[in-house]
Amino acid sequence: MQAERITSAQNPLIRHIKKLQTSRSYRMQCGEFVADGFKLLNEALKWYPRLKTVIVTDEANCPELPKTVRLVEIPQSLMQSVSSMKTPQGVIFTCDLPKQMQAAIEPGMLLLDRIQDPGNLGTILRTADAFGVKVLLGEGCADPYSEKTVRASMGAVLRSVPQSVTITQLLSSGVPVAATALSNEAVDIRSINLRDYVVVIGSEGQGICKELLEAADRCVIIPMQERCESLNAGIAAGIVLWQMRK
Amino acid sequence: MQAERITSAQNPLIRHIKKLQTSRSYRMQCGEFVADGFKLLNEALKWYPRLKTVIVTDEANCPELPKTVRLVEIPQSLMQSVSSMKTPQGVIFTCDLPKQMQAAIEPGMLLLDRIQDPGNLGTILRTADAFGVKVLLGEGCADPYSEKTVRASMGAVLRSVPQSVTITQLLSSGVPVAATALSNEAVDIRSINLRDYVVVIGSEGQGICKELLEAADRCVIIPMQERCESLNAGIAAGIVLWQMRK
Repeated sequence: MQAERITSAQNPLIRHIKKLQTSRSYRMQCGEFVADGFKLLNEALKWYPRLKTVIVTDEANCPELPKTVRLVEIPQSLMQSVSSMKTPQGVIFTCDLPKQMQAAIEPGMLLLDRIQDPGNLGTILRTADAFGVKVLLGEGCADPYSEKTVRASMGAVLRSVPQSVTITQLLSSGVPVAATALSNEAVDIRSINLRDYVVVIGSEGQGICKELLEAADRCVIIPMQERCESLNAGIAAGIVLWQMRK
Repeated sequence: MQAERITSAQNPLIRHIKKLQTSRSYRMQCGEFVADGFKLLNEALKWYPRLKTVIVTDEANCPELPKTVRLVEIPQSLMQSVSSMKTPQGVIFTCDLPKQMQAAIEPGMLLLDRIQDPGNLGTILRTADAFGVKVLLGEGCADPYSEKTVRASMGAVLRSVPQSVTITQLLSSGVPVAATALSNEAVDIRSINLRDYVVVIGSEGQGICKELLEAADRCVIIPMQERCESLNAGIAAGIVLWQMRK
């Protein structure tokens, strides 16, 4: 395959990439997202059917691509200015966003409520993928297709697509809900079978929103020393996912 | 208590703070470290006997301090330039470093091998404290008393002092060692009692160093889906600590 050559930072493709990197609404509008590095590209080639454009500094280093993919070569200096990595690996690529499906809500899934830190979100998606647990994104979560989240997920968003759900959808599914939250009736996460529930994790700062808390069938806690207020949200999710693993 | 007033960025105390924030060797040399925010100050007052200097923008907001503590008031504008927080809370304080003791190495402790990211280190110390597991810092770990680690630890370093150990000290203790690492003989972390061992966690990039690996009595793994290479180091430590909790 012969790569196109682009050398100008003003080229529409380069400007497109920069907007994909920074704007969630632009990603939504174009139905496309961008990621950086060979490791993620290889995950996309292996798992994700919607790879669109690959931009490399040296065509010779590029793995074999499907014929439908646009391949572009750019100079090192331009890569340096386009890549959001301190030390660019020499490849950036874009994919079409996954088709939005109506989420099938089932027991044994994890629901994230307003996890807004892209790094935390990516780490949780990575852990969920490692333990074979499907993730539902509630309203107010960070974009799973921001560059930072895709990177922190180590490609998990390419291997299994997180589904967005509203509280209304969750409640109308009839699946029992367990909220990880302090309450008088909260029980140790080991004392029930978490896989019988959709388990909800809230944001580090604010916990789980009132509406979800009130709708929850039960509250569960990770028991810990009294003098500690809480765990990091990613760690709490990791332990819950470990208890939920298949 | 009447606070001293300082208004100049050239004041020796202000310059001292800035050096404590940025230089590990300066912290070692002075035997002092610095932290930011009221939450950490309250933890220090509750748990840490070596509080030294408290700098506030408004004396009226300061909790009651022991008489031996130096209290200084500075203008908001100076706090803005001294604090490493984007939105300073209005208090910075310093403590003397803990006295270095010969670490008592016992089964049921976690040993960190070259965890270099201050945020990861702080998160692991926070989780260990939550589950009542003592932490040993191997050679090559980040400084537990950097501002970022103290913050990520949510004060855990003020509540329980992590002890530094060398590989030689570990091995001469005679306590059995379990390394979290892939190997042909590695077993599921649930299949042994982790509290019979010092459990070693390695750095995300490089894993556990050769010397420790060779000295380990056994290797343990967190089982996961084949397509995932690994977990984030903080998450892996979190799950191991959950399995080791008292």
